[in-house]
Amino acid sequence: MGTDGGTSRSPGTGLSGKLWGGRFAADQAPLFERLNASLPFDYVLAPYDLAGSRAHVRMLVSIGVLSGEEGGRLLSGLDQVAAEIESGTFVWDLSDEDVHMAIEKRLIVMLGPVGGKVHTGRSRNDQVALDLQLYLRDAVDGHQERVIGLMRSLHHKASSEGSVVMPGFTHMQRAQPVLLAHHLLAYFFMLERDRRRLVRWRDSSWMPLGAGALAGVNYPLDREKVAVELGFDQVAPNAMDAVASRDAALEYLSTAAICSLTLSRLAEEMVLWCSQEFAFATLPDEWTSGSSIMPQKKNPDGAELVRAKAAGFLGRLVSLGSLLRGLPLAYNKDLQEDKVYVFSTREELDLCLEAMTAMVTAVRFDPDKMRQAAEGGYAQATDVADYLVTRGLPFRDAHRVTGQLVALLAAQKRPMAAATLDELERLSPLFDSSYYQVVDLDGVIAAKVSPGGTSPRSVAAQLDLATKMLVEADNV
Amino acid sequence: MGTDGGTSRSPGTGLSGKLWGGRFAADQAPLFERLNASLPFDYVLAPYDLAGSRAHVRMLVSIGVLSGEEGGRLLSGLDQVAAEIESGTFVWDLSDEDVHMAIEKRLIVMLGPVGGKVHTGRSRNDQVALDLQLYLRDAVDGHQERVIGLMRSLHHKASSEGSVVMPGFTHMQRAQPVLLAHHLLAYFFMLERDRRRLVRWRDSSWMPLGAGALAGVNYPLDREKVAVELGFDQVAPNAMDAVASRDAALEYLSTAAICSLTLSRLAEEMVLWCSQEFAFATLPDEWTSGSSIMPQKKNPDGAELVRAKAAGFLGRLVSLGSLLRGLPLAYNKDLQEDKVYVFSTREELDLCLEAMTAMVTAVRFDPDKMRQAAEGGYAQATDVADYLVTRGLPFRDAHRVTGQLVALLAAQKRPMAAATLDELERLSPLFDSSYYQVVDLDGVIAAKVSPGGTSPRSVAAQLDLATKMLVEADNV
Amino acid sequence: MGTDGGTSRSPGTGLSGKLWGGRFAADQAPLFERLNASLPFDYVLAPYDLAGSRAHVRMLVSIGVLSGEEGGRLLSGLDQVAAEIESGTFVWDLSDEDVHMAIEKRLIVMLGPVGGKVHTGRSRNDQVALDLQLYLRDAVDGHQERVIGLMRSLHHKASSEGSVVMPGFTHMQRAQPVLLAHHLLAYFFMLERDRRRLVRWRDSSWMPLGAGALAGVNYPLDREKVAVELGFDQVAPNAMDAVASRDAALEYLSTAAICSLTLSRLAEEMVLWCSQEFAFATLPDEWTSGSSIMPQKKNPDGAELVRAKAAGFLGRLVSLGSLLRGLPLAYNKDLQEDKVYVFSTREELDLCLEAMTAMVTAVRFDPDKMRQAAEGGYAQATDVADYLVTRGLPFRDAHRVTGQLVALLAAQKRPMAAATLDELERLSPLFDSSYYQVVDLDGVIAAKVSPGGTSPRSVAAQLDLATKMLVEADNV
Amino acid sequence: MGTDGGTSRSPGTGLSGKLWGGRFAADQAPLFERLNASLPFDYVLAPYDLAGSRAHVRMLVSIGVLSGEEGGRLLSGLDQVAAEIESGTFVWDLSDEDVHMAIEKRLIVMLGPVGGKVHTGRSRNDQVALDLQLYLRDAVDGHQERVIGLMRSLHHKASSEGSVVMPGFTHMQRAQPVLLAHHLLAYFFMLERDRRRLVRWRDSSWMPLGAGALAGVNYPLDREKVAVELGFDQVAPNAMDAVASRDAALEYLSTAAICSLTLSRLAEEMVLWCSQEFAFATLPDEWTSGSSIMPQKKNPDGAELVRAKAAGFLGRLVSLGSLLRGLPLAYNKDLQEDKVYVFSTREELDLCLEAMTAMVTAVRFDPDKMRQAAEGGYAQATDVADYLVTRGLPFRDAHRVTGQLVALLAAQKRPMAAATLDELERLSPLFDSSYYQVVDLDGVIAAKVSPGGTSPRSVAAQLDLATKMLVEADNV
Repeated sequence: MGTDGGTSRSPGTGLSGKLWGGRFAADQAPLFERLNASLPFDYVLAPYDLAGSRAHVRMLVSIGVLSGEEGGRLLSGLDQVAAEIESGTFVWDLSDEDVHMAIEKRLIVMLGPVGGKVHTGRSRNDQVALDLQLYLRDAVDGHQERVIGLMRSLHHKASSEGSVVMPGFTHMQRAQPVLLAHHLLAYFFMLERDRRRLVRWRDSSWMPLGAGALAGVNYPLDREKVAVELGFDQVAPNAMDAVASRDAALEYLSTAAICSLTLSRLAEEMVLWCSQEFAFATLPDEWTSGSSIMPQKKNPDGAELVRAKAAGFLGRLVSLGSLLRGLPLAYNKDLQEDKVYVFSTREELDLCLEAMTAMVTAVRFDPDKMRQAAEGGYAQATDVADYLVTRGLPFRDAHRVTGQLVALLAAQKRPMAAATLDELERLSPLFDSSYYQVVDLDGVIAAKVSPGGTSPRSVAAQLDLATKMLVEADNV
Repeated sequence: MGTDGGTSRSPGTGLSGKLWGGRFAADQAPLFERLNASLPFDYVLAPYDLAGSRAHVRMLVSIGVLSGEEGGRLLSGLDQVAAEIESGTFVWDLSDEDVHMAIEKRLIVMLGPVGGKVHTGRSRNDQVALDLQLYLRDAVDGHQERVIGLMRSLHHKASSEGSVVMPGFTHMQRAQPVLLAHHLLAYFFMLERDRRRLVRWRDSSWMPLGAGALAGVNYPLDREKVAVELGFDQVAPNAMDAVASRDAALEYLSTAAICSLTLSRLAEEMVLWCSQEFAFATLPDEWTSGSSIMPQKKNPDGAELVRAKAAGFLGRLVSLGSLLRGLPLAYNKDLQEDKVYVFSTREELDLCLEAMTAMVTAVRFDPDKMRQAAEGGYAQATDVADYLVTRGLPFRDAHRVTGQLVALLAAQKRPMAAATLDELERLSPLFDSSYYQVVDLDGVIAAKVSPGGTSPRSVAAQLDLATKMLVEADNV
Repeated sequence: MGTDGGTSRSPGTGLSGKLWGGRFAADQAPLFERLNASLPFDYVLAPYDLAGSRAHVRMLVSIGVLSGEEGGRLLSGLDQVAAEIESGTFVWDLSDEDVHMAIEKRLIVMLGPVGGKVHTGRSRNDQVALDLQLYLRDAVDGHQERVIGLMRSLHHKASSEGSVVMPGFTHMQRAQPVLLAHHLLAYFFMLERDRRRLVRWRDSSWMPLGAGALAGVNYPLDREKVAVELGFDQVAPNAMDAVASRDAALEYLSTAAICSLTLSRLAEEMVLWCSQEFAFATLPDEWTSGSSIMPQKKNPDGAELVRAKAAGFLGRLVSLGSLLRGLPLAYNKDLQEDKVYVFSTREELDLCLEAMTAMVTAVRFDPDKMRQAAEGGYAQATDVADYLVTRGLPFRDAHRVTGQLVALLAAQKRPMAAATLDELERLSPLFDSSYYQVVDLDGVIAAKVSPGGTSPRSVAAQLDLATKMLVEADNV
Repeated sequence: MGTDGGTSRSPGTGLSGKLWGGRFAADQAPLFERLNASLPFDYVLAPYDLAGSRAHVRMLVSIGVLSGEEGGRLLSGLDQVAAEIESGTFVWDLSDEDVHMAIEKRLIVMLGPVGGKVHTGRSRNDQVALDLQLYLRDAVDGHQERVIGLMRSLHHKASSEGSVVMPGFTHMQRAQPVLLAHHLLAYFFMLERDRRRLVRWRDSSWMPLGAGALAGVNYPLDREKVAVELGFDQVAPNAMDAVASRDAALEYLSTAAICSLTLSRLAEEMVLWCSQEFAFATLPDEWTSGSSIMPQKKNPDGAELVRAKAAGFLGRLVSLGSLLRGLPLAYNKDLQEDKVYVFSTREELDLCLEAMTAMVTAVRFDPDKMRQAAEGGYAQATDVADYLVTRGLPFRDAHRVTGQLVALLAAQKRPMAAATLDELERLSPLFDSSYYQVVDLDGVIAAKVSPGGTSPRSVAAQLDLATKMLVEADNV
């Protein structure tokens, strides 16, 4: 894909030759062909190439460059090619170099010389730029749908596990008790931003067809018509930019990478939660694999792979970024490599999103273990200090007293609620039996009344907002 | 920055100790302090930290958590700190660990215990998240302004050099003649997309303050009020997300990297154009450096550095991406490193944008050399073939005849326009003297009438659109 | 590949099930299988897996864990599997998960229960670690051979183009005249370092088999024997390191990336040299592609792709690096992804090396153009200043005088040698007719007598050294 | 640093101007100076620049280019500059552009015109290449020393904690019991390979001085003498390679990155082990930080930062790699940026190594918790199955029976050793009381007799080898 251009190309010396090869004395070296051909991977662009050609032909008819009869024949030809590709009867011939040539040659075989007219007023440079934009848009739409699926699955879990209490961690240390729903909703909102980035991506996708090789073409094309038919909001207003830029692909890779990083964090937590050390959750047999020598093992391979694959997204992003650095205008063959990164990114992100959705749905939490962990970590200490402050102790003293209390209990591996009134009073006369309400996990959680906090009311509000976001996402 | 939280922290055993150190028996190892302290770089957050604290204090007063008098004292204290920092009299003490502690300690020294109340209902975790968002927004605004500056400079150059003709390149080969204005406008529109990405970034920037350490706080904060005062469109609706996410920073680094890649391509072309081989342009003395041993040298160091620096943007992007991969919720100390990448990205992008703007303004083109190069590359060949087609020759034959003509002339290093009528007619009887109009560079260019093409009319339309975009960008 | 281990695994309920699935109540989700299976790519490890199994079986016989008869049957079975794979009759069944399981299951089908004994005393964790080391070693050897091929091709070109003069560039500005041979040999020596890195890589490749899952196994294995048979210099001395480390793969990716960067620089120069602006060289038809609309075009696609592909090497390196960051011991499923990066790196580097070798052999230089460019850039200015210094002028004055001379000539586009004696004497009385020898390009070049310089004698010495290096490389 | 070259430069119009500026009519733009100057960071090269200059001067005297008296004066001058820099009295003037100019100008002020002779027969291009090689070598030596320090600390810990038993993990699941010493030694051997990579790096470090700007110089320099004095094994045999290549820097960044990844894995385990969930270890107060609101918190910030910083190493590696991609020969200003990546890599790796060494020394393990975790995970299951196999049961049946046993016990949260004889015999008549020896953790561990395994004897052998490696490392 991508050696430049060609208005109304047609074969020089027969269909078996390169369409552009008329002036070349020697054939390409086989090694060069192997290096150069993009057909082994760009055949996936076929549906986008066909859609672009259909819109192009209709527009050429509308401005009188093709007759209605020519246009009709080309459109049926394109339909037939589409049918052949769909049914698997289309013969991909590697010597065709790229998907554009393969389709055009088939049209010429089918329709005779009129087949070549599909290429009137365009070049492979703008053609592949269009195919890529259409491919990216489809990819983005597919991702968005799957992100919503995962958000829905998190929302469902957060709703159904509403009352489960767990330790919230900072620095991987138990920090403050939170509702599991609060924790799960954090991912919901992270994914909402990921989703919005996908939506916003469209603003970078401008319709390139009509740019020709880099200078425009000799026909007064109606590019707005093509843009409307293909669903673009904007026509690329400069031909060199249209064929030479790949920022939409870069932004796509970046958006996908950021989303994959969100998934990797949830995946890491899945792995941790399913460890015997945390024991907060189990993944069902369907989502783990075993070991023939260790019958006790149920490995969370799926979560590990989602975690791992995020590294691949970063690599592909940096590859395309590096490829574009210092590349002079306009089209250069280097741009052919963009597809390698884009294609596997689409496939991998869909896979990761589907896998995480299934795992979130499948995972089973152990509320007892989680609550026990929350009890065990003195995560109520902040609230005890605050309690002493409200009873008049300066904060520095309240902090010190609470510290002494924690030290006392920790030495004996007793939880916060196990302090006796006697012990408490010895530390400070301000303690009384209301202490036990303060250190009650549910009380601690209920006190986090700030919007966005983990109190049941705040979490309910979060769930409401989440519901609204899902409704809006569906209506877009 | 970032070891978690603290409502109304105050020093345990005097101001010289860590504010949170009351329960620690031993001091931190000096090596640990060196590893851990962020003050050596995060002091640049001070204005953002102060702005956040002011909004926080006003909100606490509005919900009655602080009295009006306390609020007033804190606000004057914050003003005084701001003044001290601005005037350079503020003493940064590395043992303060981070900018938040440094400022808070100063407040306490100034105001006594009430100074500590600035931290009521917040934690360093949400505080630094807010500072970062404010910093990023400022960075983005500053970039946008500079991008517009560069766009303006390109627009000006494209307007004033409207009629200069140059070869358009693909694969670094002369392809078709274009107007210099057409080439420069390609960058204008690339930058317009870069600019829009900066604008769209705001949609990812949600107001984190009020999240506390990760669970919310025990006060019914009015987070909307804070958001409005600080100019956010949206409050982060989940406390764990608010303190643990850095996707806004990642998107910023990505947006900056994509913009730097645009600059790197223009920089590469500057370097090429200023070479003796191209000789299309010269940079004035102010923007080159010389060599003491080679008096003939004028090196385009500025352009080389802009080209080079784009690689650094990619590195910083991949660093933060990798850092976030698999990081469990909520706050982890790893997040402190985000600032290293963000701070130098802001500084470097501003520098690169300013440098490119100055170079675009300063560069002097050599219209004769450029036109001569466009003449020399047989870049009119496409139009000759099209000419034969319109006279009835099938395209394959037209292509072959044109190829023979190019081969004939190239062997004698004669330009396209130098073919004699006699030579032409020997190749095809369809040629006549109208050939000379066809191969006239200005004619070739004028024929590129498609929207976005390089014909003077199409370029004029591009310039009009560019003007409109500048007006809109200024009004945002 | 890689779900952990298993001594003498055998199927639970029939060969169609997972070998480790006996205790699982539910089948894996199809989506999980798709995510989890490595067979679609790791089948290329088959020859290495077979070699490792052969060595393992022989060792088990030598220490008496397997009988000679069992060993014999297993070895013939492995031979038969090898033959089936080679001939294409081996049936890859995706439900086998990975190449190890696929081969083992086939052995069991062939040989009955004894087939399962191939897995005695090992685990898939150490098995895949071994396969990867063997694969990497083969990759490295193949690269080294091809690097030598390219070095040879550069050496040949440098020898045969010995007297061609060209401008040497710094900052893409003509700096000093050099021999083309000097320029080409720069790449020769860069590649020699690339080659040595490949050789040195072996020091990081330690024999992992015998590590079991992570703890060693219950047999007194003779790991040294296996290492010797498989050609390793060192046994991995710790089982956890053996299964968990991938630094050899990372070093491989880094070594390959550095080599690809060398190639990218040569490729960039090819692209520049073949432009009409430089016109220093042409690539033959076999190594260029054309354009159907621009008959004059011969695009250096091969060189562009080698330049572009270097970006992919960086991406794969950063992916594996990021994947390994913070990964706890010992084996984690994440490690399965290493193969994706390693396999395509091997394939791409071989392709790039072969392509550059062919292009270096095929490229045709234009000595006249090159010399003309060297004349045109005032690249003798340094030597003129030195000349004045040797005649007694302080350097600062010599520099100024030379600068005035260059300015004078440049304004009239006259080359350095075109200064008249009259003009010279007006600038400084120290000039006389010996000036013309000084500015003679060959004289300037001949003066660069320092070792490593571009004087014919120094270049001859470089060529001698290069010859010696090739001889040594061949003898390794 | 780096604008090219200059034999015996001296100021044109006074010391305040650029040394090469004589022919420039206009001053550089302040923005350009800010972009261009490397002095703000490259001043750290001063000691290397001075060492290189000393060797250069001695060599120039030895070949008679400088008189002994001139050489003597230059050497004293260089000593004085060194003294001024060390004592802090040297005045760095940003208008000097780079460290080379700053030092040379000082020499000229001190010594008069002879000061400029230090630059005879060299250029800033080869000068900075030399400085960088010397800097890198120092960095590498410093890293190696610190790696050995960390290895020693791991060795010590592994020796002193020899008998502690812990669960070995795969997929973050308890897999098989191992000795803590076995686990720690895994890192020892990983670091040994990291160390060897540092040692091997020297093979890529060739002595560049004498290359001049890119073509060599007009003096018959004795480059071998310089190489010997500065401790290089090899002279760079080609001047263009010498000034244009940065593969030694890239290999350095890669080697450092791989080492940082080793550290990041150990850091991650520190974080996990110090969590309440694992509770395997605690870091002392000196290596943790607290929270003012959560008195229970002791955050392992140091380990988190080492984990995080590994991402920065990857970023810097990819930055330099991307910068070099497609960079034509010879020197380009882009190369100035290499220092940014190299300098912070050196600093950060030293810091990370020192921090991990201190943390490994400081960490306190909890043998009871660790053993208890090893008991709790049914990590003996493999050995139970093997036990049944040795008693005659086919492996598939043994695996099934063991699976049933684990399922039975797991349902009641009873450890492996808690099965009653009665329960066992109901599952298989092959069980008898020897079962209890089999499931004894120490027995399981002792059975791992393969070299590299976790049996005490195998671990003792590992420790012996580790001791030998330390001795050898010290003797290098």
